[in-house]
Amino acid sequence: MAPAHRDLLQARVWRVAASGPADVSGVEALFAAGLRPETVVAILGKTEGNGCVNDFTRGYATASFEALFARLGVAAPCLVMSGGTEGALSPHWTVFARESVADATETMDAPALAIGASRTPHLPYHHLGRREQVLLVAQGVKAAMADAGIDAPEDVHFVQIKCPLLTLARVHEADAAGAAVATRDTLKSMGLSRGASALGVAVALGEIDAGEITDAVIGARLDLFSRCASTSAGVELTDHEIIVLGMSRAWRGPLAIDHAVMASAIDTVSVRAAQARLPETARLTAVLAKAEPDPSGMVGGRRHTMLDDSDIAGTRHARAFVGGVLAGVFGMTDLYVSGGAEHQGPPGGGPVAIIVDRIATVDIATMDKES
Amino acid sequence: MAPAHRDLLQARVWRVAASGPADVSGVEALFAAGLRPETVVAILGKTEGNGCVNDFTRGYATASFEALFARLGVAAPCLVMSGGTEGALSPHWTVFARESVADATETMDAPALAIGASRTPHLPYHHLGRREQVLLVAQGVKAAMADAGIDAPEDVHFVQIKCPLLTLARVHEADAAGAAVATRDTLKSMGLSRGASALGVAVALGEIDAGEITDAVIGARLDLFSRCASTSAGVELTDHEIIVLGMSRAWRGPLAIDHAVMASAIDTVSVRAAQARLPETARLTAVLAKAEPDPSGMVGGRRHTMLDDSDIAGTRHARAFVGGVLAGVFGMTDLYVSGGAEHQGPPGGGPVAIIVDRIATVDIATMDKES
Amino acid sequence: MAPAHRDLLQARVWRVAASGPADVSGVEALFAAGLRPETVVAILGKTEGNGCVNDFTRGYATASFEALFARLGVAAPCLVMSGGTEGALSPHWTVFARESVADATETMDAPALAIGASRTPHLPYHHLGRREQVLLVAQGVKAAMADAGIDAPEDVHFVQIKCPLLTLARVHEADAAGAAVATRDTLKSMGLSRGASALGVAVALGEIDAGEITDAVIGARLDLFSRCASTSAGVELTDHEIIVLGMSRAWRGPLAIDHAVMASAIDTVSVRAAQARLPETARLTAVLAKAEPDPSGMVGGRRHTMLDDSDIAGTRHARAFVGGVLAGVFGMTDLYVSGGAEHQGPPGGGPVAIIVDRIATVDIATMDKES
Amino acid sequence: MAPAHRDLLQARVWRVAASGPADVSGVEALFAAGLRPETVVAILGKTEGNGCVNDFTRGYATASFEALFARLGVAAPCLVMSGGTEGALSPHWTVFARESVADATETMDAPALAIGASRTPHLPYHHLGRREQVLLVAQGVKAAMADAGIDAPEDVHFVQIKCPLLTLARVHEADAAGAAVATRDTLKSMGLSRGASALGVAVALGEIDAGEITDAVIGARLDLFSRCASTSAGVELTDHEIIVLGMSRAWRGPLAIDHAVMASAIDTVSVRAAQARLPETARLTAVLAKAEPDPSGMVGGRRHTMLDDSDIAGTRHARAFVGGVLAGVFGMTDLYVSGGAEHQGPPGGGPVAIIVDRIATVDIATMDKES
Repeated sequence: MAPAHRDLLQARVWRVAASGPADVSGVEALFAAGLRPETVVAILGKTEGNGCVNDFTRGYATASFEALFARLGVAAPCLVMSGGTEGALSPHWTVFARESVADATETMDAPALAIGASRTPHLPYHHLGRREQVLLVAQGVKAAMADAGIDAPEDVHFVQIKCPLLTLARVHEADAAGAAVATRDTLKSMGLSRGASALGVAVALGEIDAGEITDAVIGARLDLFSRCASTSAGVELTDHEIIVLGMSRAWRGPLAIDHAVMASAIDTVSVRAAQARLPETARLTAVLAKAEPDPSGMVGGRRHTMLDDSDIAGTRHARAFVGGVLAGVFGMTDLYVSGGAEHQGPPGGGPVAIIVDRIATVDIATMDKES
Repeated sequence: MAPAHRDLLQARVWRVAASGPADVSGVEALFAAGLRPETVVAILGKTEGNGCVNDFTRGYATASFEALFARLGVAAPCLVMSGGTEGALSPHWTVFARESVADATETMDAPALAIGASRTPHLPYHHLGRREQVLLVAQGVKAAMADAGIDAPEDVHFVQIKCPLLTLARVHEADAAGAAVATRDTLKSMGLSRGASALGVAVALGEIDAGEITDAVIGARLDLFSRCASTSAGVELTDHEIIVLGMSRAWRGPLAIDHAVMASAIDTVSVRAAQARLPETARLTAVLAKAEPDPSGMVGGRRHTMLDDSDIAGTRHARAFVGGVLAGVFGMTDLYVSGGAEHQGPPGGGPVAIIVDRIATVDIATMDKES
Repeated sequence: MAPAHRDLLQARVWRVAASGPADVSGVEALFAAGLRPETVVAILGKTEGNGCVNDFTRGYATASFEALFARLGVAAPCLVMSGGTEGALSPHWTVFARESVADATETMDAPALAIGASRTPHLPYHHLGRREQVLLVAQGVKAAMADAGIDAPEDVHFVQIKCPLLTLARVHEADAAGAAVATRDTLKSMGLSRGASALGVAVALGEIDAGEITDAVIGARLDLFSRCASTSAGVELTDHEIIVLGMSRAWRGPLAIDHAVMASAIDTVSVRAAQARLPETARLTAVLAKAEPDPSGMVGGRRHTMLDDSDIAGTRHARAFVGGVLAGVFGMTDLYVSGGAEHQGPPGGGPVAIIVDRIATVDIATMDKES
Repeated sequence: MAPAHRDLLQARVWRVAASGPADVSGVEALFAAGLRPETVVAILGKTEGNGCVNDFTRGYATASFEALFARLGVAAPCLVMSGGTEGALSPHWTVFARESVADATETMDAPALAIGASRTPHLPYHHLGRREQVLLVAQGVKAAMADAGIDAPEDVHFVQIKCPLLTLARVHEADAAGAAVATRDTLKSMGLSRGASALGVAVALGEIDAGEITDAVIGARLDLFSRCASTSAGVELTDHEIIVLGMSRAWRGPLAIDHAVMASAIDTVSVRAAQARLPETARLTAVLAKAEPDPSGMVGGRRHTMLDDSDIAGTRHARAFVGGVLAGVFGMTDLYVSGGAEHQGPPGGGPVAIIVDRIATVDIATMDKES
């Protein structure tokens, strides 16, 4: 996937409606309209499960896309499925592709959306949730930045990471090797892995000094966080898949990205400020955000009940509510709002990336004429 | 409760935090600070239950306030408890009082927030959900307008109605009297009663001509609706308790009200426009809104999953999401967002009343000096 | 699938544990151990979703089995996936196969478990939930009985039917053809289709006279029911897949079946009586049952809360509870307990089929030596 | 409450249906029929909430009974409210009274149901969940045994304990006193307090040697448990309310008690054995049981999904299922099945107490003639 000539690359992004976890027809339609499957770098999905332990819509969607790419004879791209479309959030796929630009416009020199990808080496299970994972991810983020042709950390606006988790079998494998794991609780291992991965982003981007990271801060020192990280744990890998989104002069095309860091679930000021930094006439392409119940039990000084609700998981409440906050700002509901935000933005808040098309409408019907 | 001299009245409104359904201590604190219990006209509560059939937090809160007023030797005011604080919505009470103004400022002649109340006669059970209920409520709304000193329908901004429902015993009573009820399904009777009551508001305010109302349109013709109605059904009454909020020159004080009608769950344009009609320097006192899952299955042209979710009731999704939309606009989470919006605003949308203090902060500590 | 020589057939049944909706490895192990895929007639699955509208575990399991049979180059058998393993119910597959018996024991003439299958013609959408569907299914059941070599209705012990439902598209198709459907509510169409199919079983088995069936009784006259029917609606077909389980002298092998009809959720007397009719030394092979919340709101004269619970669907409560009742009787938790029991047994009760191995343990490890 | 002459005491027990958490009318009817309120020792309630953190039905029921006893001018008895009537479990109150027997039958010398009560001293907050709590409860159990006139531990069949929990305020109070609490997690403190209380029962009854108890075993060594303990944590007390139920020759009357210890959720053998130890002609008066999801993830060697379900709490699944198992055995649904069974019976199992009337039906209508 490494580009031969960076200056000939262009990022393309589509939001595609899904009528269910197995509905890949919208992406097939993109292919039918000319998109080459091998240019797809990643697909981020919002599926309509509970986003918690027994959410099988993620696996179902992943299996459906794997079957699609297998039929096409192309290796599947990075697939990140986030369960939970609470409130009026709309199930959809966001497709990220990068293409060589045939007739690069020499005169255009403004930065454009850049997409980089990398995978880390296998993570030994006893390193999960520990300093070693943070450092491994930090290296991976730097590799993805290099792949994207982004040098300056301030040009990175969103880092999506799919990280591993512990299962009973993996704990036993570590036991057999005489290596003590950070936790034997498999659910807790997801939070630790997400948190350590987010701290890895922070270290790579210079938000936190690597010297500050000890095992003890992971999952505990919530004041340490990345402003760009979005991480999710999956059982299907033992390494890390990393996608970096940022701005680079080595890329072409109408797409641009910026991001906000919400200080709380109702902080629209930061979001509007990020929006204002993008061209006023730009058309919204995608919004990617993290949400979580404020661990203080309060939002804006008033009590919330998300963490005391034994009927609905707090993460579901948070997605529904922050989904509403952002849908009110952006006027659309197919937003990628994902839960589980350890070390990803401040406690109760989170990063929000905004991708826009500065020039024209990308329309599937006219897609083949564009490139 | 009818005021002798309208020009000597002033409305007062407080939002009071609740630590649980039985926590009336914040209202007791208002009394301790000088508020006279007998001036309280209504208390609207958001309690942290599911807002559906087996929500006992409403009854628990009502019983707690009844016990409080009984201890004080004062008849309990109209108590409207709305269950459901999904997302980051915050459990709270909104207390409405009306007081005689000792030293009325002769020079002040601008309209101010006016509160009127009325009760209808007993509703025969076979009239529930039928044209007769609509007409009975319409009369009651006019009585409450008169009580508030409001003549023009356009000066009414919110009408909160507590209406009856059918129980098995009531159905049997109607049977015994040879009178056929509109439905034998007690849950469905709640929706019919809410809908008929909302249409009663529409008729009273001239939004719909009484001639248009037949039994068949109730619960069916969703294009017929009131822009100001907020209704909820309760088992504890067989008549209707009606509270009208509007603007009147016969009232004094800093409070003012306006309202929006959201066209959909993400329609913030209408809400911001209503906000803009109120003085820019005014301080927010209370927001009262209705929310429901869009029956079309779409919001803004994109599918939502609220109505297909067998784990979480659609009304809960709607409150969480619209709560987020409004909290993003108003920057606070103790909003009265209530579900079950039949004929209350357009399908998938709903009315939003905004009450502001135009002049000064109403502070409990300084309350006795104000009046 | 029609057998050439009935006297050479033998039914085989396995319960196979599933670690998740996509885990078909246990069935693959059966194939590896010698079971020929083309002999599999049906797979009934209990998957760990909510068993309601947004249960994607059923579709995920079906897709996983379809992929498995496609890999094997064999047409997939009838796949009936029932969501919901509430309480301690255990996710599992029940595999039904029928094989030719190479060395038929001439002397053995006792009846044995017989399995018959049939499909009906396509059901016109405006016939769904109406008398026409009942009669169509009745014909199909008779065809499946013939396929099983069962003549007498009293030899039939369980009839599993997968029936169609209405979708918005199908309603529109009927509209376009000028044919009025029984309901435009797609969820309601599932109950109507299940109910009409169950009544079709009752007509085929002579439990109800066809003359008694009118459109009006379907879903309404709950006193009309089959004692053997188990029906479930699926979006993936527009005809009916019918599996008949019974006893026939034309079949060989150790398996036998009998059934009870629970009069209520706590009626263990009928279940123990059915168990007693089977040989005392027999080993339990499978239990298939239907469960539903008693529509009277009472079980054994005492109130239940299943139908008033807005947090957990009544069908989920019913499966958990009846699962417990039956697990207490049978001492195992991988029971096929399915919800949605319209016209399938009396209101609040339901049929329970018991399949036993009268002679020996069927063991995967020794399977190839057995046949 | 201590009886002057033990040989003049008789226990009385009623199960009373509740139409909701505030419905105390059935108990009022007992009083109207002659039961003297001051003889009531305890009321155990099953209320229809979720039995988890945000279950307000427990507080609502407690407040309703406190108001009832206040109206009667009698101190409220021990009120233990257990939330959760999943499956077909029926909301009800079990009323325990002890009365002096006016005309004691000298000749009757068989043991009868005995009820003893005690309260421990205040538990310092830093002792909660630690060895000190175990020893304090052990002393309290011995006091309740003495109050019941029971000497031998084998005559004790059920010990119901209401124990305290930590709140944020209590943690801060301990902090201020320089005393470190066992946990700062208030939810976790409930489990620790229940577990330590259950171990206190075990120590008092000689099931475990006090020397075995260290802080480290509490909540960890699940192989250490009492066969008779049923404990629940409540925010409203800082000591322990203890009720001992057993058999004593110092008591009179037709009631008797025995108990089983279920080894797993489907262990009906132990329950039937306990039932068989009671007179065959006896009429069932009450069943009291504990249930929990098997922490091994298996029941009878097969996987259950209770602990992986993010939609329904595992304790709710367990109550529904074990409720079904026991309702199948006893043929009634108003069983006291309570969750949260740390150190109360073996992991995944739990104690089941059975109270029967050996002679006659206790009937409210004829109650005043009986005593």
